Amino acid sequence: MTIAAVQLRNLRLRSSYIEISNLLRGRSAISPRQCYSPVQAPRQFHARAYLRQEEPSKRLPEFLEAYKRSVDFPPATHDFETFFAQAEPNTEVVLHGYLGNRADLSKKLSFVRLSDPTLQHSLQVVAFAKNDAFEKLKTVNVNSPVAVRGIVQKKKTKPSETENPPVQDLWELALEEIHPLNDFPKDLIMTPETVFPPEQRYLQLRSDAELREALRFRARAHNICKKELEEQCPPFVDIETPLLFKSTPEGAREFIVPTRREGLAYALPQSPQQYKQILMASGLPRYYQFARCFRDEDLRADRQPEFTQLDMEMSFATGDDVMRTVEGVIRRLWSSLMKDPAPEGPFRKVPYQKVMAKYGSDKPDTRYGMEIIRLDHVLPVDLVGKISDLANPIVEAFKVEGNDNNPAETHKFITQFLDSPAGAPFNNNPDGGPGVFVYNGKQPLCGLQPFGFEAAEQVEELLDPDHGDLIVLQARPRAPFSGGSTPIGDLRRALHAASVSVGFKPAPTGFDFLWVVDFPLFSPSSDSEPGQGGAAGFSSTHHPFTAPKTPADVDLLLTDPTQAVADHYDLVVNGVELGGGSRRIHDAAVQEFIFRDILKMPAERLTDFSHLLDALRSGCPPHAGLALGFDRLVAVMLGKESVRDVIAFPKTGKGGDDAMVGAPSPMTEEALKTYHLKLRK
Amino acid sequence: MTIAAVQLRNLRLRSSYIEISNLLRGRSAISPRQCYSPVQAPRQFHARAYLRQEEPSKRLPEFLEAYKRSVDFPPATHDFETFFAQAEPNTEVVLHGYLGNRADLSKKLSFVRLSDPTLQHSLQVVAFAKNDAFEKLKTVNVNSPVAVRGIVQKKKTKPSETENPPVQDLWELALEEIHPLNDFPKDLIMTPETVFPPEQRYLQLRSDAELREALRFRARAHNICKKELEEQCPPFVDIETPLLFKSTPEGAREFIVPTRREGLAYALPQSPQQYKQILMASGLPRYYQFARCFRDEDLRADRQPEFTQLDMEMSFATGDDVMRTVEGVIRRLWSSLMKDPAPEGPFRKVPYQKVMAKYGSDKPDTRYGMEIIRLDHVLPVDLVGKISDLANPIVEAFKVEGNDNNPAETHKFITQFLDSPAGAPFNNNPDGGPGVFVYNGKQPLCGLQPFGFEAAEQVEELLDPDHGDLIVLQARPRAPFSGGSTPIGDLRRALHAASVSVGFKPAPTGFDFLWVVDFPLFSPSSDSEPGQGGAAGFSSTHHPFTAPKTPADVDLLLTDPTQAVADHYDLVVNGVELGGGSRRIHDAAVQEFIFRDILKMPAERLTDFSHLLDALRSGCPPHAGLALGFDRLVAVMLGKESVRDVIAFPKTGKGGDDAMVGAPSPMTEEALKTYHLKLRK
Repeated sequence: MTIAAVQLRNLRLRSSYIEISNLLRGRSAISPRQCYSPVQAPRQFHARAYLRQEEPSKRLPEFLEAYKRSVDFPPATHDFETFFAQAEPNTEVVLHGYLGNRADLSKKLSFVRLSDPTLQHSLQVVAFAKNDAFEKLKTVNVNSPVAVRGIVQKKKTKPSETENPPVQDLWELALEEIHPLNDFPKDLIMTPETVFPPEQRYLQLRSDAELREALRFRARAHNICKKELEEQCPPFVDIETPLLFKSTPEGAREFIVPTRREGLAYALPQSPQQYKQILMASGLPRYYQFARCFRDEDLRADRQPEFTQLDMEMSFATGDDVMRTVEGVIRRLWSSLMKDPAPEGPFRKVPYQKVMAKYGSDKPDTRYGMEIIRLDHVLPVDLVGKISDLANPIVEAFKVEGNDNNPAETHKFITQFLDSPAGAPFNNNPDGGPGVFVYNGKQPLCGLQPFGFEAAEQVEELLDPDHGDLIVLQARPRAPFSGGSTPIGDLRRALHAASVSVGFKPAPTGFDFLWVVDFPLFSPSSDSEPGQGGAAGFSSTHHPFTAPKTPADVDLLLTDPTQAVADHYDLVVNGVELGGGSRRIHDAAVQEFIFRDILKMPAERLTDFSHLLDALRSGCPPHAGLALGFDRLVAVMLGKESVRDVIAFPKTGKGGDDAMVGAPSPMTEEALKTYHLKLRK
Repeated sequence: MTIAAVQLRNLRLRSSYIEISNLLRGRSAISPRQCYSPVQAPRQFHARAYLRQEEPSKRLPEFLEAYKRSVDFPPATHDFETFFAQAEPNTEVVLHGYLGNRADLSKKLSFVRLSDPTLQHSLQVVAFAKNDAFEKLKTVNVNSPVAVRGIVQKKKTKPSETENPPVQDLWELALEEIHPLNDFPKDLIMTPETVFPPEQRYLQLRSDAELREALRFRARAHNICKKELEEQCPPFVDIETPLLFKSTPEGAREFIVPTRREGLAYALPQSPQQYKQILMASGLPRYYQFARCFRDEDLRADRQPEFTQLDMEMSFATGDDVMRTVEGVIRRLWSSLMKDPAPEGPFRKVPYQKVMAKYGSDKPDTRYGMEIIRLDHVLPVDLVGKISDLANPIVEAFKVEGNDNNPAETHKFITQFLDSPAGAPFNNNPDGGPGVFVYNGKQPLCGLQPFGFEAAEQVEELLDPDHGDLIVLQARPRAPFSGGSTPIGDLRRALHAASVSVGFKPAPTGFDFLWVVDFPLFSPSSDSEPGQGGAAGFSSTHHPFTAPKTPADVDLLLTDPTQAVADHYDLVVNGVELGGGSRRIHDAAVQEFIFRDILKMPAERLTDFSHLLDALRSGCPPHAGLALGFDRLVAVMLGKESVRDVIAFPKTGKGGDDAMVGAPSPMTEEALKTYHLKLRK
């Protein structure tokens, strides 16, 4: 059965597997423990009849009797680890766990594996036809939870087996008694490979050892971060901040939580930013927290409407102090949990302008070259006109190493890529699609004729292509960098991924950490990012509490704020932004000046920040901080593509659905009334 | 100045302390760093003028110049602890911290104390009129953050001082340079005794060492719980569960979080109950989490709309397993953090019926006697008629030990109590007010004439009163116990508190832990508790997932569910419920039977639980768990009356206000539109 078929089948089973299974098997009688239909299929409920019967002794339906038996089970004498450490032959033990597949060797002998409750250990159980347990075992479905009582015995090993078998193969249990604790449905297919739909997350967790291990790893990573921060001198203190906060124009769209006081609502915090800055004004110089944060944004592959960040702040500190502390956390995580420790020495700091120019991304993967260079100064006008309709554009280029120096293969590769759905956004770029050239020593000017002799020579010098390499050109308007990436940066990433998938390049390994620094303090406002709602035409690139980097940047506030550089730093590794932070404005007058005169926020929204201004005004020391996206950090450590693989119950649908519980769900009229609300139309 | 006056003054100062201070001082010029008005008083903004000026060199307002100076400060060479450990005379150091009050000893010599950023250590700084720093120091307000550079020198101690002065009195710093980092307002009064209004929580935190220490203690307590649970075998795993959950009829009223999908909302979880039970079905047998929980209830003294619980669940486990684990956590907390360890041996288990009869409360303070006894079987009918209009009531009584065996004092005590506001609810009890009798050896029948000879003798035998003791009688309807307390239980508590406050009794000390067990599985529905919205006339006492205690209780489901006892347990100490838990129903058929046939929940609400039923149906093992109210636990450990004293930013107003940030706040029309909502009327 294919995965898709299993998935479909299990989904079907979910709503009515009992009925279906009985139909499939042609059974007419349904077993007593199955007499309840799942709630999705409302129908007449059998047990009501029992309630009307009169003789008390006959009243109790079998499912209640079965339940009474299932809750009356002997306590385990050992967990499996302790059992393996202490096992002695001919002693009686009780163990709890899940049954594996049973092998009936003869009419008098069966074997079954018992997995412990953590599903990390297992033990062979032998059943002989000498007691009731032998027959009872046969009535228990595979994967069902059980308590078993048995006699410990040394396992007979075949001579073919290794001399040092794992400890769990040294012992077995001769079955004396078995207590079924619940039924695992016979008809549910569960193998380590089964992919369950998000509705059945519990079955995915149950069947997928790697997913469960990811959650345990996550807990260990949490503890290491905690330890590193609490061992600082003075130590960071874990302080919880409120989640029922207030709507403020920090940047992202916030979820609101209506209250029973008409027209009033809390907002869920997009981060504990304001509370942690207020802590800095409160004589608590080093704060951290694993903080739940909320953003009402459209779900992207790696975004959840709620997420966890390792949030921290230090007073009497600069950005460098924060970066040093975070490097300590990362180093400790890698040395404690990873195969190879993080590289030694401070992580390098690269300005935003430089990463944008070199990689076309503010979170570049720096491990695989393919660096971008400017070419417009060497290109003939007619070539530029061919790749873009823009007047006087900037033209950038990078090189992709082809395979086996075979230009034909390279040609096929780039054609297939550009014709694929992945290539569409690049072809449709209104500033012109990519210009692609395969370097081919067997052609005139090595395939670079459109450049003309002079430019071709300069291109060769700048990019140093080999026979069969690909050269990609891309135009963009002559404007300063803003935002997270340029089209050529996106193309570099996509072509690298494609070249790995076709085997031109090996997948990059290791971790290359860097700090991206010197972001512009402000960025042009756009419709998709609400920003701070000011009238200035630009918004804070990160949040409006970010400090200008140097005295010269403070001066720029009055002359040309869009040129000012922020003391903001993002931690980037392998193309992933692990987190970001900044030195904050610690002076109320300057903060208010930014709100009112630079961002030109309306007075009523400015008032929303009065608590922060008041706190800064009470002699708040300089401070700086950072937040690490903890879901993403764990995903990166485990090499997972998606944060969903390191979250027990992720949101999965496009609208931020928890498909398992069915959230969000319709608001009842009663709830709307309670909160003095009604739906528009 | 009284505390109230300071509070009033500081509140006034908050909105316009600069203006007021200048008026008070008759200053006309305002200092450059103060030229920004707080946002609460919108007025014309001075700095706009600067923007219009043309000469760049003159453009920068002084507050920006001051800001540039304040962010350019030398890093600290030492934190204070390291400094004290490593101090060497005649070395130069840079330290960060807050200035104390300055003492000007002469025109050439000043002293000032410097507190470190944590406000836990301090050091004397000596300024000589030999450099600029001497004059600059005088311009810096007390409490302002500074960086100071100075030369370490041994402090000259007077002969009167002890031979082993604390380490911080061994050294002082000769001031070389001082960098003011921000201004603490001159006009703000801050002493360790100042009580600030909730709007100025940052100043309360800044001035109140005990409050800051409570937050550090809380973090330590968190770590100890974590350690104990993670050292179990197999270990508990810290797993985060979603906060954007779904509205389900678990019991309490939930906050809803509207989404941009018309009519759909998330709900904030009242606890992670359903997710943790689903984890038990997912092969993760031991879960814990410090979980943020939300209940939209009216704020009581000790309740917050958001709170933190130490939440845990174990599969293949019974309630006894959970109680044993929790006792381990409590014992570890007490032995690690408290003066005296928790009492040895398992905590005793007392059934609900027994604590209600003996203490009139399901969370009794068991440290001070005053136990309640039934008296109606010995009382003459006419006496019963005098204390209650109820036909055939139950009458209970307890004794309060008077002081000095002086009946007149006792009489005065009880009269004052009943005439006070605290006594009003007891006097106004519709079932009759308390009957009070002062035992007086000098009166006929020792003051018990209304009992008649025979009953008086039995009362003496049952209560064993001394001369001057108080005997209190209270009637209640002849009905089974339900809810958290009886009027006589409340009276016992109130009279005990009153007798401590007048000095009749010493305040009780120590910690007396007990498990209250055997709660009724169901309780009568009431308007104030929405319960599960079923049509049965009763609701689950705790939540609808609680398992019946014994097979006999399972039988009662069909005959008389209101008589069934739950496998629920509350941990109680000194009159405070620290937490509660239960064994859960792990069988889908039984859980559905409870929902549908016992609670008679409507089909559409039952469907809200389908994810849980589906998970149980997938072979979920038996499981049990508990949640400790972590805010309350920390408050109890620190002997605090209110959880607000152990929360950095508590909600304070009756409506769940965060007075500091001003939450909740008005929903904007834009926000309402985004969520397809409008206000009713």
